[in-house]
Amino acid sequence: MMQTLNVELAERSYPIHIGSGVLGQPELLTGCLPRKRAAIVTNTVVAPLYLDKLQVTLQQLGVESVPVILPDGEACKNSDTMNLIYSALLSSRCERTTPLIALGGGVIGDMTGFAAATYLRGVPFIQIPTTLLSQVDSSVGGKTGINHPLGKNMIGAFYQPQLVLADTDTLNTLPDKELAAGMAEVIKYGLIRDAAFLEWLEQNMDLLLVRDTAALQYAIERSCRNKAEVVALDERESGERALLNLGHTFGHAIESGMGYGKWLHGEAVAAGTLMAADLSERLGWLDAGQVARIRRLFQRAGLPVISPDLGVAAYLEWMGLDKKVEGGKMRFVLLKEMGRAVVKGDVPTELLRQTLQACVK
Amino acid sequence: MMQTLNVELAERSYPIHIGSGVLGQPELLTGCLPRKRAAIVTNTVVAPLYLDKLQVTLQQLGVESVPVILPDGEACKNSDTMNLIYSALLSSRCERTTPLIALGGGVIGDMTGFAAATYLRGVPFIQIPTTLLSQVDSSVGGKTGINHPLGKNMIGAFYQPQLVLADTDTLNTLPDKELAAGMAEVIKYGLIRDAAFLEWLEQNMDLLLVRDTAALQYAIERSCRNKAEVVALDERESGERALLNLGHTFGHAIESGMGYGKWLHGEAVAAGTLMAADLSERLGWLDAGQVARIRRLFQRAGLPVISPDLGVAAYLEWMGLDKKVEGGKMRFVLLKEMGRAVVKGDVPTELLRQTLQACVK
Repeated sequence: MMQTLNVELAERSYPIHIGSGVLGQPELLTGCLPRKRAAIVTNTVVAPLYLDKLQVTLQQLGVESVPVILPDGEACKNSDTMNLIYSALLSSRCERTTPLIALGGGVIGDMTGFAAATYLRGVPFIQIPTTLLSQVDSSVGGKTGINHPLGKNMIGAFYQPQLVLADTDTLNTLPDKELAAGMAEVIKYGLIRDAAFLEWLEQNMDLLLVRDTAALQYAIERSCRNKAEVVALDERESGERALLNLGHTFGHAIESGMGYGKWLHGEAVAAGTLMAADLSERLGWLDAGQVARIRRLFQRAGLPVISPDLGVAAYLEWMGLDKKVEGGKMRFVLLKEMGRAVVKGDVPTELLRQTLQACVK
Repeated sequence: MMQTLNVELAERSYPIHIGSGVLGQPELLTGCLPRKRAAIVTNTVVAPLYLDKLQVTLQQLGVESVPVILPDGEACKNSDTMNLIYSALLSSRCERTTPLIALGGGVIGDMTGFAAATYLRGVPFIQIPTTLLSQVDSSVGGKTGINHPLGKNMIGAFYQPQLVLADTDTLNTLPDKELAAGMAEVIKYGLIRDAAFLEWLEQNMDLLLVRDTAALQYAIERSCRNKAEVVALDERESGERALLNLGHTFGHAIESGMGYGKWLHGEAVAAGTLMAADLSERLGWLDAGQVARIRRLFQRAGLPVISPDLGVAAYLEWMGLDKKVEGGKMRFVLLKEMGRAVVKGDVPTELLRQTLQACVK
């Protein structure tokens, strides 16, 4: 049974349809395609799996589609690839009313969303995330963008889709490693604001890992609901939305320090969350048993819990470029207790150094 | 005496201060610079003239500024130059609260605005236009962006500044050719919606060309007011805002066909407006005397009234890529009468061809 979640953002509100087979249901797309034309942005991995299926669904609505097939991977999330998208859209004369459909994971979603935000100063955007990570993370909240050689996600825009289709069937072709990476963000929602969901995850992790459709649908819907609640309160990330970045300040440093694409985003978030948990313990907020419980859940999901040994100086350097820096001071998202994250601005440097040294071994 | 015009766009409203010496009045900037830090984006032509002055004004507020000095010209309005801006902002650790100040003409304003819209997904933006064109055109309306090899202004965003300072003193260093180019847009406002202003321009063109401060201030304020009224009604260009594009469909074809930067934007708009007037005459809306009156005013301002002979096919090709294309049909902004423009969608191709042939000689 499909579930629908409405992301409430006044005139930018939109529905997320979650379930098995939603990619094959043309009626869900009616109303978003008035002009009988759309561009589909996807990549060389996803296109052979799902492009045909989406094109057939669109044909049932009489919609002709222009595919734009990009290379795969985080390393391509840059301005050169953006120019490939723009050139394809211009060559096929896509207009202001032509929707861009993102078919793929987070990289495709972020780039397609940014293209939709900036092509002809903004065109309609539809998201069809095909990885667990993109279904629970990038499909809610409107963050779009690309990397810059000096930092991840530094260039972008807030731009909301008109519709999201999260088809759990697409997770059947997802490599284990990527399923695990998505699970890092799912676990994050439990940690930052939903202790009951955290317990549910501890009880149902095995079902999720064998890709039980009902369990996945439940986890995706509850994750998206958590994120949608946070985003509805704080669309432009001035306050509560920062809590969604648990593990991300450390995680971005790992991704940047290792070079984009060496670590999956979710893997970096898992290891980064353990660093945040370690620092929370040093501040006296968590006890060793709770940190061990967090470590165990990530390990069961198949995620790394030890960070790469970049050296303290490199970590500090990479974290200094993080967007969450305010007035030159670092701000950390830490766990006040299990199921409740807070932002803390005045972390003693000595404790931070201890964490950076302790978590790499 | 300085004049202040408020552009009414709900929570995105902002003031434009127009007058002699506003660049040297720190009190106008108070409130926009809470963090005592700003980045100034300018170019190699404007920096030697006005960068020092602006930095001194900022210093009076205790604001430290990071200059980003770009090469000059429309040919630089591309993604490579955007990457130069992003790199400079990242290297100097500009944050979400650091305003970007555009100091220069339309190219600087468009690129800085797009950088402000997309750096860290959006930072505050202040505009200090130093050419007549940018003071009367790009400082109102929030259009930002860059060119693409396949078309002009194809990539961008709608992003409003917090404040605009239009200092008439900066026009004293403007080459005659660029003053004339700005005058093309000033005349446009009279043609599309303000017949009384059109008459005022016919009476005061000589004063404007000798850069009489009071006349310039009046023309800038009235131009901005006309544009602000149109934009307030239609921020995202779904309807009336299209009228501002009088002469621009033809003008863009001239600019693209000749190669970016060969013709100044205002020059192309002047020649393009004559094409629109010619087509309006062929539709029976203007008489020959009215077209001659328009031609004379542009000529007095020192603007071209004959278009380059690209050939009909090339014009059609370049116009086909214009953003104002809807459902595959071209839409033209034409003059129903002196002081009133309308959008017309079903122009007989034969009349269009006649115009394209008649106006190049």
